[in-house]
Amino acid sequence: MQYSPFNPPVRTLMGPGPSDVHPRILEAMSRPTIGHLDPAFIQMMEEVKALLQYAFQTKNELTMPVSAPGSAGMETCFANLVEPGDKVIVCQNGVFGGRMKENVERCGGTAVMVEDTWGEAVDPAKLEEALKNNPDACIVAFVHAETSTGAQSDAEALVKLAHQYDCLTIVDAVTSLGGTPIKVDDWAIDAIYSGTQKCLSCTPGLSPVSFSEQALEKIRNRKQKVQSWFMDLNLVMGYWGSGAKRAYHHTAPINALYGLHEALVMLQEEGLENAWARHQKNHLALRAGLEAMGLTFIVKEQDRLPQLNAVSIPEGVDDAAVRGRLLNEYNLEIGAGLGALAGKVWRIGLMGHACRNENILLCVSALEAVLSDMGAKINQGVALSAMQKALA
Amino acid sequence: MQYSPFNPPVRTLMGPGPSDVHPRILEAMSRPTIGHLDPAFIQMMEEVKALLQYAFQTKNELTMPVSAPGSAGMETCFANLVEPGDKVIVCQNGVFGGRMKENVERCGGTAVMVEDTWGEAVDPAKLEEALKNNPDACIVAFVHAETSTGAQSDAEALVKLAHQYDCLTIVDAVTSLGGTPIKVDDWAIDAIYSGTQKCLSCTPGLSPVSFSEQALEKIRNRKQKVQSWFMDLNLVMGYWGSGAKRAYHHTAPINALYGLHEALVMLQEEGLENAWARHQKNHLALRAGLEAMGLTFIVKEQDRLPQLNAVSIPEGVDDAAVRGRLLNEYNLEIGAGLGALAGKVWRIGLMGHACRNENILLCVSALEAVLSDMGAKINQGVALSAMQKALA
Repeated sequence: MQYSPFNPPVRTLMGPGPSDVHPRILEAMSRPTIGHLDPAFIQMMEEVKALLQYAFQTKNELTMPVSAPGSAGMETCFANLVEPGDKVIVCQNGVFGGRMKENVERCGGTAVMVEDTWGEAVDPAKLEEALKNNPDACIVAFVHAETSTGAQSDAEALVKLAHQYDCLTIVDAVTSLGGTPIKVDDWAIDAIYSGTQKCLSCTPGLSPVSFSEQALEKIRNRKQKVQSWFMDLNLVMGYWGSGAKRAYHHTAPINALYGLHEALVMLQEEGLENAWARHQKNHLALRAGLEAMGLTFIVKEQDRLPQLNAVSIPEGVDDAAVRGRLLNEYNLEIGAGLGALAGKVWRIGLMGHACRNENILLCVSALEAVLSDMGAKINQGVALSAMQKALA
Repeated sequence: MQYSPFNPPVRTLMGPGPSDVHPRILEAMSRPTIGHLDPAFIQMMEEVKALLQYAFQTKNELTMPVSAPGSAGMETCFANLVEPGDKVIVCQNGVFGGRMKENVERCGGTAVMVEDTWGEAVDPAKLEEALKNNPDACIVAFVHAETSTGAQSDAEALVKLAHQYDCLTIVDAVTSLGGTPIKVDDWAIDAIYSGTQKCLSCTPGLSPVSFSEQALEKIRNRKQKVQSWFMDLNLVMGYWGSGAKRAYHHTAPINALYGLHEALVMLQEEGLENAWARHQKNHLALRAGLEAMGLTFIVKEQDRLPQLNAVSIPEGVDDAAVRGRLLNEYNLEIGAGLGALAGKVWRIGLMGHACRNENILLCVSALEAVLSDMGAKINQGVALSAMQKALA
């Protein structure tokens, strides 16, 4: 069997990520590869670190991209911070809290689960109760922006509570970074991880992380080695650290890092606050269109993430058929429900470069065309003016 | 501080990897990103699997790229196959055998080291002795192509021995895949990992792996979960497996996989045997030039890897100064020594797209120019004709 070059279809990516990648970033990734110890590359690494500090709003020295996707960033946080026997309080309000539990247990820790209804924010009162009942807990972990539901939790309040009970914090910001405010230093987050394929408009494959001095102290004082060699920050820092001499650890994904550098330069050009405002404004326009059509959000207004819009699938409508028609007829990808929400919701992403008013118009009109064609009970002919009003 | 787009210098990469990336592969990486569950992408994944089976010369169903660099591919093999308490025989003849030991121990296993001199092949007699002395060992691990020294070991013989003593085998083929023969099925290798940034001419960031049915059986019968969630093959296979329905595990590095697909299509176009022959022929030409100049290889002739040429640095010559001048004056990267060989050798890579006769001429002439300018005792004016003869 002889294979040919792969020419992907041109899609509009409005699912839970990857989101649309800006052409500047795609072009950056195709620039000539250089060595991972080349002085020019090391200079670029310094810029990536500085730009990530800006994106995370932190002065943390240990701020860098893990050379693998977001779930490896998550594991880097847990594998370095959790030691066998550690008790970790995990707040779960969606799929990714469950993955945190898996991480804790595979690191030899015990997970105390604080469960909230999927689609709701993490309840600080429940966390406080768990902290009171588990004085031996040393870490609190939660998801800032639940990609599986579109709910946003109050990271500042949760971190504050955790610190009152002498716990470090691990925060999942995969979907929030660049799309909604995160202030690592102001909120005193100890360990945070994100992904490049969401609001940074970059391709998937890297996971920006940042660690506070308190987190580093726990890592330095570990009784036994980090169980992962690849993710051991003591070793990774020899390469990404600011020492005069970089020690080879693993071979960095050079061209993927070109892409991240370009994405972060673009974020700086736009300005972080402007990026947050753009996501919020476009979210309101998308919401206006979807609600005018008669669709309902599953997350309460005050907890909604602008970049991830989960709406209930109207009764009697075939989930997969709708998504299939959007993809095949309009080259438009929206997301299916995940875990307990599979078949019940659609997840419409407004992330990074995908978060543009032309995409909102396309998405809502295509959805209206397909749903009305399939005989779903929706309000026709009213979405566009609702969106125009919101965008005005 | 305002940052600008990064425009890398254009280098010729003749170090230990990353090696030169073919423009077709760079261009492929800049194609439009699509979703990781898009039917078009899943079709491409099937092709990547089939092409990797060709590159590895195997029918193993579990043949796929790990979404992270080669050292994560190494860890994927150890984390899945080694259980706490397992005894693993590790043959070390360079840096990467030492990394294997770290992996075994971090997985809770015990490593029995079989040491060979750096720059020599692994001695099958020493391995057999270790197998006799450790009847409770269940895995043998070794490096097929030691990137730190340029020595090649007889993988077929070592695997045969391991099987005689009922051990599974883990083989490091990071530098060998696509450059020198590997026959996973004929040699009955149980677990093998490689990298994309060596003889496949691709950018760094992915690690092709393949596992035999015997290896899968050990993984299926594990007493406890794999300690890494990200690398757990039971989960990864839900996405990369051939089932009708792909389950989301992590977000695949879409554009990096476009690059690997293109690299593997190019390997198929050239033909695996032709690629091996090209590496061998160019190695002989490089060798003719270097030896004519008076430089000596550190590896015995029969154990030399064609794609990684380690030569002793002439006495009195400043290692870093030479490499710096090659980089700054000729945009040519060659590699430094690693570990025990730091400061003692240069490592000249002839990998994938970098393995071309024009590169050999450039490398040897630039080295002659710099060394003679620095007053090193070399034979001048004879290298070119030696290379011409070898290339004829």
